[in-house]
Amino acid sequence: MEEYEIAIVGGGGAGLTAALYAGRAGRKTVVFEHMVTGGQIATTALVENFPGFPDGVDGFELAQNMLKQAEKFGAEIRYEGVTSLTRREDGRFELNTDSGELAAKTVIVTAGAGYNHLGVPGEERLTGHGVSYCATCDGAFFKDQDVVVIGGGDAALDEGLFLARLVRSITLVHRRDTLRASKVLQDRARAEPKLAFAWDTVVEEILGQDSVSAVRVRNIKTGETRDLATAAVFVFIGQTPNNALLKGLVDLDEGGHAEVDLRMRTSVPGLFVAGDLRTQAARQLVAACGDGATAAIAAEQYLAERT
Amino acid sequence: MEEYEIAIVGGGGAGLTAALYAGRAGRKTVVFEHMVTGGQIATTALVENFPGFPDGVDGFELAQNMLKQAEKFGAEIRYEGVTSLTRREDGRFELNTDSGELAAKTVIVTAGAGYNHLGVPGEERLTGHGVSYCATCDGAFFKDQDVVVIGGGDAALDEGLFLARLVRSITLVHRRDTLRASKVLQDRARAEPKLAFAWDTVVEEILGQDSVSAVRVRNIKTGETRDLATAAVFVFIGQTPNNALLKGLVDLDEGGHAEVDLRMRTSVPGLFVAGDLRTQAARQLVAACGDGATAAIAAEQYLAERT
Repeated sequence: MEEYEIAIVGGGGAGLTAALYAGRAGRKTVVFEHMVTGGQIATTALVENFPGFPDGVDGFELAQNMLKQAEKFGAEIRYEGVTSLTRREDGRFELNTDSGELAAKTVIVTAGAGYNHLGVPGEERLTGHGVSYCATCDGAFFKDQDVVVIGGGDAALDEGLFLARLVRSITLVHRRDTLRASKVLQDRARAEPKLAFAWDTVVEEILGQDSVSAVRVRNIKTGETRDLATAAVFVFIGQTPNNALLKGLVDLDEGGHAEVDLRMRTSVPGLFVAGDLRTQAARQLVAACGDGATAAIAAEQYLAERT
Repeated sequence: MEEYEIAIVGGGGAGLTAALYAGRAGRKTVVFEHMVTGGQIATTALVENFPGFPDGVDGFELAQNMLKQAEKFGAEIRYEGVTSLTRREDGRFELNTDSGELAAKTVIVTAGAGYNHLGVPGEERLTGHGVSYCATCDGAFFKDQDVVVIGGGDAALDEGLFLARLVRSITLVHRRDTLRASKVLQDRARAEPKLAFAWDTVVEEILGQDSVSAVRVRNIKTGETRDLATAAVFVFIGQTPNNALLKGLVDLDEGGHAEVDLRMRTSVPGLFVAGDLRTQAARQLVAACGDGATAAIAAEQYLAERT
């Protein structure tokens, strides 16, 4: 069975930075990514808050550069999923992937978090046909049309403001009468003429035959229900940790994120978790990257003590 | 007394990233830096391990870009030192600076760590006259000359390899017979023809009238003492946390670094520490930047809960 010194699950900012450090340390390193390297940034049009880029940077380009950098220092990237992770009695790990088995002396899991769904009728059926969780990916399909955005946090406003550059109008549907988003984003959103707010409002159903035609919403204060005609529904109501590999293996917090210490060590020696999947994550790209570097250094120390 | 919402002490990677996030959150933010913004990176010729730059990036340029980005989002940068930090009974903080007093609702200390000295005769007297702690700053003064580097970790080899591009020869003096540095750096150093190693060797004295002329070294195995003629001595033997503001205020670990949780919160509410000054730091730029973002978000949450 092929054995790596450091196996990294997930090729987002945390995983690619871990790979860069693991590679520089001269360790035999592999990164598994079953979607697109770069993680969430790969689908972010303009990253304004990654330090070092005062004019912002295209998310896809930044992700590609992180990938290039990790490969430059010797990390191998495999585009496949990891389906199970177990710890052997000798302390090594076994990973099952889409194409077979392999062993690893240490594992860094950076599988991130997935988008939460509304869980209303029509949502699943119309995903990819007007229901979207990524404005950057899908916004261009709705140029000069009317769209609806669901949510009241940073992501909702961030993506809403991005959409404003493309679409004709946006109705932001939020279940409360105040926003959770940062003040900068709130100020910007309120100043955006294309953006209207539907406060105290929840989604009951997404309507449409082959594609979205309207959203049925209800005002939770008045009880009134109405249909908002729209070509698209962009849903930004949080994320859920991708912790399937960790369940039963490491300690998780109540939200399902891995418990780690300041060096990204989990309750299992040799197993590290970095980025949005770890407890108390700041959920920012630069913090995920910092975690990745920290985890790789901790893995390197773990290996140095044992080999 | 002027009051800020977020006062940041230190303008390195951690401080500037904290400022970027604090500014984006719309908080009245100030950064105090008594030396050069960018911290240690500002004097690093080529930063190869900051993700997003596959060909590396000039440290000074990267620092300037981080500074520009922090200012773009509204942070004020003040080039002065903070001489004391106290917590008032109402939970606010008072800072004494070189130019006066100010108040802050939250404080993020990112004062980093300073270079350790050898503590041998001649070192202090000849600092700036051949004794240096920064190859990037001072290497060019010794073009085509013979120099000595002290240390066996990443910094010593990193800086030694940088010097190899400028000087005629380097003798690397290390008190052990193995290096602590990463394998990549070790391989590179051993392949560098300009670099010779003096193993099991310690420095007893630095010699010279107006500038360094030689280093007196002793082999700890044979006891033999000899003078190495050299134009410069570059010392890379670790760092000590700049914790003067924190002593008696927050819990410190045995090495003098601030105890923090995963959100960079110290034992004092409203006071955060990020970067190399916090306990268990990875001591890498991207990790310091991640810490800065995390601390600013925690400070923002602290403020949001109270204002």
